[in-house]
Amino acid sequence: MKCSRCRKTAVINLPSHNAAFCRDCFLDFFLKQVRRGIEQHGLISEGDRVLAALSGGKDSLALALALHELGINVTALHIDLGIGTSSDKARAVCERFCEGHGIPLIIKETAEDGLAIPRVKEALNRPICSACGKIKRYFFNKIAMDGGFSCVATGHNLDDEVARLSSNTLRWDKGYLSDQGPLLEGSGGFARKIKPLWRLTEYETAHYAFLMGIENHYAPCPYSEGASFSVLKRLWQDLEEAMPGRKISFYQGFLERARPLFAAEETENGDALKPCALCGYPTSSDICGVCRIRRTVQEKADLLHA
Amino acid sequence: MKCSRCRKTAVINLPSHNAAFCRDCFLDFFLKQVRRGIEQHGLISEGDRVLAALSGGKDSLALALALHELGINVTALHIDLGIGTSSDKARAVCERFCEGHGIPLIIKETAEDGLAIPRVKEALNRPICSACGKIKRYFFNKIAMDGGFSCVATGHNLDDEVARLSSNTLRWDKGYLSDQGPLLEGSGGFARKIKPLWRLTEYETAHYAFLMGIENHYAPCPYSEGASFSVLKRLWQDLEEAMPGRKISFYQGFLERARPLFAAEETENGDALKPCALCGYPTSSDICGVCRIRRTVQEKADLLHA
Repeated sequence: MKCSRCRKTAVINLPSHNAAFCRDCFLDFFLKQVRRGIEQHGLISEGDRVLAALSGGKDSLALALALHELGINVTALHIDLGIGTSSDKARAVCERFCEGHGIPLIIKETAEDGLAIPRVKEALNRPICSACGKIKRYFFNKIAMDGGFSCVATGHNLDDEVARLSSNTLRWDKGYLSDQGPLLEGSGGFARKIKPLWRLTEYETAHYAFLMGIENHYAPCPYSEGASFSVLKRLWQDLEEAMPGRKISFYQGFLERARPLFAAEETENGDALKPCALCGYPTSSDICGVCRIRRTVQEKADLLHA
Repeated sequence: MKCSRCRKTAVINLPSHNAAFCRDCFLDFFLKQVRRGIEQHGLISEGDRVLAALSGGKDSLALALALHELGINVTALHIDLGIGTSSDKARAVCERFCEGHGIPLIIKETAEDGLAIPRVKEALNRPICSACGKIKRYFFNKIAMDGGFSCVATGHNLDDEVARLSSNTLRWDKGYLSDQGPLLEGSGGFARKIKPLWRLTEYETAHYAFLMGIENHYAPCPYSEGASFSVLKRLWQDLEEAMPGRKISFYQGFLERARPLFAAEETENGDALKPCALCGYPTSSDICGVCRIRRTVQEKADLLHA
């Protein structure tokens, strides 16, 4: 197989783009797709300071590196969840990566706020994943706002987005359908959220990470039940194989034709936000979700020491 | 495995209903689901005369029989497409079925109008399936309107509907999304269209047909490339297996929460209809699709005899 551009030997075949690429042309293609994704939805403007969420997984590392390679002013943020060796390893990967590439790194330990995940897990009588996600998003936002960053970037790729969109569509969840997309504008205490890898698949992103020598030693979370949306992602692989190009046309078609309808309705009927009485974070309740978690953890601790 | 109702030996297991049934309880369940589907969306009212489209396939035969068993005033309509032995066999199945069950049958031969499908296929430079579908829908509607029927019923089951909805959703085709459903109200020259089997799967419908002794000798159309939506139907089988009940929740969720948004937009921006200049059938052009087909067939014939 030859590279569609330069006719050297190809290292990757991309049926949905009707193309194959050698190493250099693929890296060029990858960055061009990231840039196109950014420009298509105005994710980043001249002079923006981007805070990239860095879990230590290959998608988030690829995101930070691609933004850096594109000459964008990017700072990485790693949230240390305090989950024993799993968190230690992830943090060490992020530190080595950022040092190696000269990307500034902020580390936030949730334990500082009494929110080490094992402690939260002990205190809560429900699955930890959604609480952990809430805590991470809370700190992404808080650190972006406090640090004067223009936006928070996450490493969600096309497969993540398509699986999430399918899940939202299977349930016809109008609230989630009203704001899913590569850009969520900032407003009322919320930083702008962007997903610059939305045009790239998991496969393409993994290849970029591999070809750029990104370390792949990420230890999966011991509390997680494995990859989310795994059933839907498998179905989408089958569908994409049968109909190449379907993933991105489904996602783009949604953004162009359907999301505006859901968004218009949400603007009319959505919950109004106000600052959390405890921490000032925007919320539709009196007290935000993370302060409620914090309170539960504290009550549990008080009970044990009473 | 025992029947969930009467504890006799079950003949069918339905995970999405969390139930298994013996023969009699399944037949009762099937008719109740048809009735529930009719009542849920007001498909048929007291005193309605229903025209059921009868292809000769098991879904359409099951539809006609179920409506008849429910005491609904049903007349069957078979469109003889004039496709050699395939059409002859389908017609014979319909005739035997209607005679056996005492259901009145109307036969319409498209050849009477110069529209035998082999002739249409010869004249058209495009796939015949969409033209054939157009011609069938034209006659369903015309015969319903001319005969004073309340509505046209078709045998589409839940799998058909879910596959079609997925296809429309994958493309985010707002026009099709605005009016897909078990009920399309009649207006401006169009008869009401209903799909009374929308709550029943292909599997359930096939079982009903089998248990009711419905003849299954239907010869597939020689022009068709096989079952439509076969990729999507296979994906949905996988999804339903992984998450029982997803099919109907996807379909009902769409009808409740999403279709109204698409329908509202279509009312604002949709094409206005007017009577076809040649036959009076409602159309958004000057001449309806079937009259255009008829004209093409005629031109081709004139050319050959010139």
